[in-house]
Amino acid sequence: MALAGGVGGAKLAWGAAALIAPDKLAIVGNVADDFELYGLHISPDLDTLLYTLAGVANPATGWGVDGDTRQMLDMLTRYGEAPWFGLGDRDLATHLLRTAWLADGVTLTEVTSRLALALGVGCRLLPATDDLLRTMIDTRAMGTLGFQEYFVRHRWQPVAERVWFQRGEVCRVTRQVREALESADLIVIAPSNPVLSIGPILAVDGMRDLLAKRRGPCIVISPFVAGRAVKGPADKLMRELSLESSPRGVAQFYAGLIDGLVIDRKDADAPQPGDIPVLVTDTLMLTGADKIRLAQEALAFGGNLKK
Amino acid sequence: MALAGGVGGAKLAWGAAALIAPDKLAIVGNVADDFELYGLHISPDLDTLLYTLAGVANPATGWGVDGDTRQMLDMLTRYGEAPWFGLGDRDLATHLLRTAWLADGVTLTEVTSRLALALGVGCRLLPATDDLLRTMIDTRAMGTLGFQEYFVRHRWQPVAERVWFQRGEVCRVTRQVREALESADLIVIAPSNPVLSIGPILAVDGMRDLLAKRRGPCIVISPFVAGRAVKGPADKLMRELSLESSPRGVAQFYAGLIDGLVIDRKDADAPQPGDIPVLVTDTLMLTGADKIRLAQEALAFGGNLKK
Repeated sequence: MALAGGVGGAKLAWGAAALIAPDKLAIVGNVADDFELYGLHISPDLDTLLYTLAGVANPATGWGVDGDTRQMLDMLTRYGEAPWFGLGDRDLATHLLRTAWLADGVTLTEVTSRLALALGVGCRLLPATDDLLRTMIDTRAMGTLGFQEYFVRHRWQPVAERVWFQRGEVCRVTRQVREALESADLIVIAPSNPVLSIGPILAVDGMRDLLAKRRGPCIVISPFVAGRAVKGPADKLMRELSLESSPRGVAQFYAGLIDGLVIDRKDADAPQPGDIPVLVTDTLMLTGADKIRLAQEALAFGGNLKK
Repeated sequence: MALAGGVGGAKLAWGAAALIAPDKLAIVGNVADDFELYGLHISPDLDTLLYTLAGVANPATGWGVDGDTRQMLDMLTRYGEAPWFGLGDRDLATHLLRTAWLADGVTLTEVTSRLALALGVGCRLLPATDDLLRTMIDTRAMGTLGFQEYFVRHRWQPVAERVWFQRGEVCRVTRQVREALESADLIVIAPSNPVLSIGPILAVDGMRDLLAKRRGPCIVISPFVAGRAVKGPADKLMRELSLESSPRGVAQFYAGLIDGLVIDRKDADAPQPGDIPVLVTDTLMLTGADKIRLAQEALAFGGNLKK
């Protein structure tokens, strides 16, 4: 059972899937980055998890489909459009099917399940909610930005003053997520951006309660190496929001929800939480072997903890 | 000024565009084959006209974009879908933009104008109507079929008993088509399928009146060569509906609307109309030169006729 955001979360999920029987593994994905482009419903984090677990992700970027082409985007450019989001041609099939099925009234949970099944993903890949949830970033210079505007269009450069989740209070945890969390022996929060990737999962109404009532332990793998994000704005954003990108800062962010913390060797000398067990290891996942080893160590560490 | 359906109509339109100043040429296209697939609004005849006039059509098929790829379709197949319509990757950009703009409340006329302008098409490309119009085929064996089901999925093999146009009576001629028809010195009905391509243009409320009140002559180029369609089911369908695929049959189909008929040499011995002038020439358009020559001959022939 893992809560995961984009590329970092997907790497860990892939490692876990190599170790755990499919029916024992559920991955809860962030949907607050979802957006519409040319009428298509795009779920970037679910797609990254989907493609990674299916073994078809682009290894160079971590997102998108391996070997994908840009014919549609080139033609859009010819029509005078300036597409700011990478929609590969194969990737489009995912968005078209999702959009068509959602329009038919199929839930995002069921859509995701169908896509995963078709690509041979055995474990459960579950959106945190089937309701509309959107990450919003209040910035000093540009006012309030939607996630994709902030992240893709402005390459997370604007200084954030606040991150909040539009409609978080009216988004419900799905039955499937509830069942997965209630039955989980171990919950692992992946090394994803705490604020932007895990934050919106925790913002879903009922999610924090479910985590607080966990039957097994919950651990988090810090997304930081030497206090810096491996990819993306996690450390920059933590600073801007007066949070620490240290082991202590991560533990504070998840206060009350976690029973253990996995950190990188390069953060062993940074401020520590003090009140929960810490596993120090190599958290950088460059190879398939790295992903499996980190998942294995996290499972062993978490399995020995008490709630 | 031309009324045109798919591939044959597009060839003539291309020839005419090579001869006539862009501001003097308007092409009215059939929209009754339009359909939705995965939520995309697809306008096959407008697209064929658009791509042909822009010089980007696939020369092998007459439709679709030259050099287009099938990555999206391959991925759809991987998802277990069995796509029955050829959606090329570049082609998708057209459908995505059209669908998004229509959803924003832009008319199909304006959408088509934007697409044409972006691809460098100088003449006006006008949908016959901005309203929803759908060709329906009553068949003996399979009941009533929508156009794409009949044409693409069943490859026009079912025997037709009747062709009709859903919502024809509530579809209005657009202002742009009205102005083009009212000001036309000459109207040319392209060598398109009379029943399936020109029939639905004539079914738009007000279109027959506008043609009847034409200020200049109207001619039609027969789509038949030796009594057979160059492409598609025109002759088969004429027979099934007790119409003749002869020059006489074509003239009867357009009775009251035309002042002259252009036929192929191979139909010179077939039954003739008798009451209107006939130009006998080579109507097969294999090369660019063929298209320009046929357009030129039609313009000269029509220009010398009286209404």
